[in-house]
Amino acid sequence: IAKEVAKLLELKAQLGGDEGKHKFVLKTPKGTRDYNPKQMAIRERVFNTIIACFKRHGAEVIDTPVFELKETLTGKYGEDSKLIYDLKDQGGELLSMRYDLTVPFARYLAMNKITNFKRYHIAKVYRRDNPAMTRGRYREFYQCDFDIAGQFDPMIPDAECLKIVHEILSDLQLGDFLIKVNDRRILDGIFAVCGVPDSKFRMICSSVDKLDKMPWEEVRSEMVGEKGLSPEAADRIGEYVQLHGGLDLIEQLLQDPKLSQNKLAKEGLGDMKLLFEYLTLFGITGKISFDLSLARGLDYYTGVIFEAVLLQQENDHVEEPVSVGSVAGGGRYDGLVGMFDPKGRKVPCVGASIGIERIFSILEQRVEASEEKIRTTETQVLVASAQKKLLEERLKLISELWDAGIKAEMLYRKNPKLLNQLQYCEETGIPLVAIVGEQELKDGVVKLRVVATREEVNIRRESLVEEIRMRTSQ
Amino acid sequence: IAKEVAKLLELKAQLGGDEGKHKFVLKTPKGTRDYNPKQMAIRERVFNTIIACFKRHGAEVIDTPVFELKETLTGKYGEDSKLIYDLKDQGGELLSMRYDLTVPFARYLAMNKITNFKRYHIAKVYRRDNPAMTRGRYREFYQCDFDIAGQFDPMIPDAECLKIVHEILSDLQLGDFLIKVNDRRILDGIFAVCGVPDSKFRMICSSVDKLDKMPWEEVRSEMVGEKGLSPEAADRIGEYVQLHGGLDLIEQLLQDPKLSQNKLAKEGLGDMKLLFEYLTLFGITGKISFDLSLARGLDYYTGVIFEAVLLQQENDHVEEPVSVGSVAGGGRYDGLVGMFDPKGRKVPCVGASIGIERIFSILEQRVEASEEKIRTTETQVLVASAQKKLLEERLKLISELWDAGIKAEMLYRKNPKLLNQLQYCEETGIPLVAIVGEQELKDGVVKLRVVATREEVNIRRESLVEEIRMRTSQ
Repeated sequence: IAKEVAKLLELKAQLGGDEGKHKFVLKTPKGTRDYNPKQMAIRERVFNTIIACFKRHGAEVIDTPVFELKETLTGKYGEDSKLIYDLKDQGGELLSMRYDLTVPFARYLAMNKITNFKRYHIAKVYRRDNPAMTRGRYREFYQCDFDIAGQFDPMIPDAECLKIVHEILSDLQLGDFLIKVNDRRILDGIFAVCGVPDSKFRMICSSVDKLDKMPWEEVRSEMVGEKGLSPEAADRIGEYVQLHGGLDLIEQLLQDPKLSQNKLAKEGLGDMKLLFEYLTLFGITGKISFDLSLARGLDYYTGVIFEAVLLQQENDHVEEPVSVGSVAGGGRYDGLVGMFDPKGRKVPCVGASIGIERIFSILEQRVEASEEKIRTTETQVLVASAQKKLLEERLKLISELWDAGIKAEMLYRKNPKLLNQLQYCEETGIPLVAIVGEQELKDGVVKLRVVATREEVNIRRESLVEEIRMRTSQ
Repeated sequence: IAKEVAKLLELKAQLGGDEGKHKFVLKTPKGTRDYNPKQMAIRERVFNTIIACFKRHGAEVIDTPVFELKETLTGKYGEDSKLIYDLKDQGGELLSMRYDLTVPFARYLAMNKITNFKRYHIAKVYRRDNPAMTRGRYREFYQCDFDIAGQFDPMIPDAECLKIVHEILSDLQLGDFLIKVNDRRILDGIFAVCGVPDSKFRMICSSVDKLDKMPWEEVRSEMVGEKGLSPEAADRIGEYVQLHGGLDLIEQLLQDPKLSQNKLAKEGLGDMKLLFEYLTLFGITGKISFDLSLARGLDYYTGVIFEAVLLQQENDHVEEPVSVGSVAGGGRYDGLVGMFDPKGRKVPCVGASIGIERIFSILEQRVEASEEKIRTTETQVLVASAQKKLLEERLKLISELWDAGIKAEMLYRKNPKLLNQLQYCEETGIPLVAIVGEQELKDGVVKLRVVATREEVNIRRESLVEEIRMRTSQ
């Protein structure tokens, strides 16, 4: 009801906006935002960290269109399909905005008949979800995906995906984190031995997926009430999905009298053991938890699944700690590419996706709280004049500097006051001022002023570029 | 008719696709394309050149959502509005894909009450135009925009925009180019003195805009036939709009008995003279042409307008030279921000937009023709083994390398053949191989092989990172 009321109010606001002429609603669409230069600076830092990691692991990069044929996305996302943005039918093809980068990647592989590919892709995706912008939940948001496609020996690429998530979350210095790991085959095995009919596997899996937001009791009553599962089956599931641990738990479940009889579960547990061995060699098991409550929402996973969460921290940087959920996730999807191939040829894939918006939220708050001054330009020098009628001289000098690769600005005034020019440097963090004046022109020099120290020194015009370079290289 | 037939065929293809199950049409939407890693490498190079220039001029960077409220775009693009992509009404706000980066920029300025801003923005925009992909005309394409907003002394920011276009086209080494410059005020003045009624200014301007694609005779008959202009007025216009030149032409028109009586034209010509003076100081008038046939399609321009075209060249790199049109354009739009402000407060703006797709097309063809081998990863070393059962040792070593910031890969096989591992390096351009073997492990060394020379040398494990860094730094 609240949702419907909100919708009606929104409609009303729109109608109201159209009545008066020129009464625009000055906003970005619901669930979206602009990035101002400061936010862009933070975004660049985060991207650079993530891209450096992807490149360290030898990934190539691709890009795909922001929308796909509607049918490309159909039948890939289960219950979440209702959140897909469709484009209006304006004649021609029916299109939808991409919902993630995984389905476009699978489409790309099938279309180009690629069976072997390690790539990353950083781009915006679109979900008509209920936004919670202060917590970094948007309708337009970035995903940073790394995927490995190809037929390989078990768990080697899967382990690398987890290593990558571990490296990125460490490099970003977001505080303590935990990567929960599970396997769809283990979950399916559990559902089978607990007496869930095959047809309800995905449905019950969706219920388990809610365990990070609701207590078991509520999830249980959804299973029994809404999804028609028997109370006994639900209780049996409950015993399993509340378990978490490490290698010891894997061993225990491998001995479990019921589970060890199930082929899928046995496969999944065997691979999970192998995965933990590799993660031990990588030295990262300290932050990995084998967690049977992890289910992941999307339909297409077929093996290992994982999700990274930031652990609540007493953080003295941030006054009110942001409540953030998952910041990364991923898993194995061996069937997705086959759904696009005319002959159903499969290309096994595993990948990790970094959820950047929540990380932005945290870092933005941190920067705000720390009063750290972020420069949003890289300008090295302001070309200024102390007297009037020197616009032409300023234009000549700045042109020389630009052509020599120096980052230079000037005020767009014919006769700016020196004070205003110096103030502009203070505000924007420009470290040097190159001042032209009548006398300097006669002497063939430029007066170079260091903004921080107010020191001034005459530099011969032909040495100016070199001098600026020297003074602004770290 | 051809368009309608194409539409029907497309519809039929879609219906056909739905009949058989799993018979997907494996393609990207019409007028869009994927970027493969090689294309991405070229794209990165171009972006880096452009961003370097924008930063050299002290611009900050912003980003905006890929769609806007529909009403934000309404009434800004004149005849071209029919090319806007709308989103489906799924309840909530009505949305449209951005058509350029200029209107979102104006919306951003008005929404944040900013009156002074120099920013760049590189992002994809969307137009339901007839694609001509081989010539770099897409429905989804990048724009790279640089704009200066604020009340300044005349022509100083305008001149900088032209300097930027000149720098970028020079830096990209695309061959010879020409930047055509005109002013909407001069055009309107011409229309006025030629007897065009006020109400037909924009319409006749659209016709003039077609002079780069059709001869004057056709444009004239459009003016007279379709737009109802008198033949005498059209002929008078024809005498003006076929003129082009430099400072001399400006002087000549300033003396023109009719034009010099028109206030708008006089203002425009005076400013054009000033602009040419500044461009002379920048040393770039050699590639600038004052061209009265330049009109630009968009409605929102109010002053200086410009467009850069590549000149057909005898290029020995490219077998069949691509026919490319405009690669950059822009102009002054002093009224656009005011359209968003509730009180109509104006913020004068001028900007330049680089049309990247055509530049990509040229560079892609050039790379293809030159057989230049572009690496699409930066991997420094492949971690390999010569014997079986060394997967664990490879995992341990590669993990050490990653943690030390070395870009390293390994094959995802338990027991890969050495030959296959070396071949992988050849194919992907990895310069070094770190080989672990039983003996090396005992000796505490790793065998480092230089792929190009086949030279092999044992390196102590603790020195390996340093050695790789040294050998792969340029």
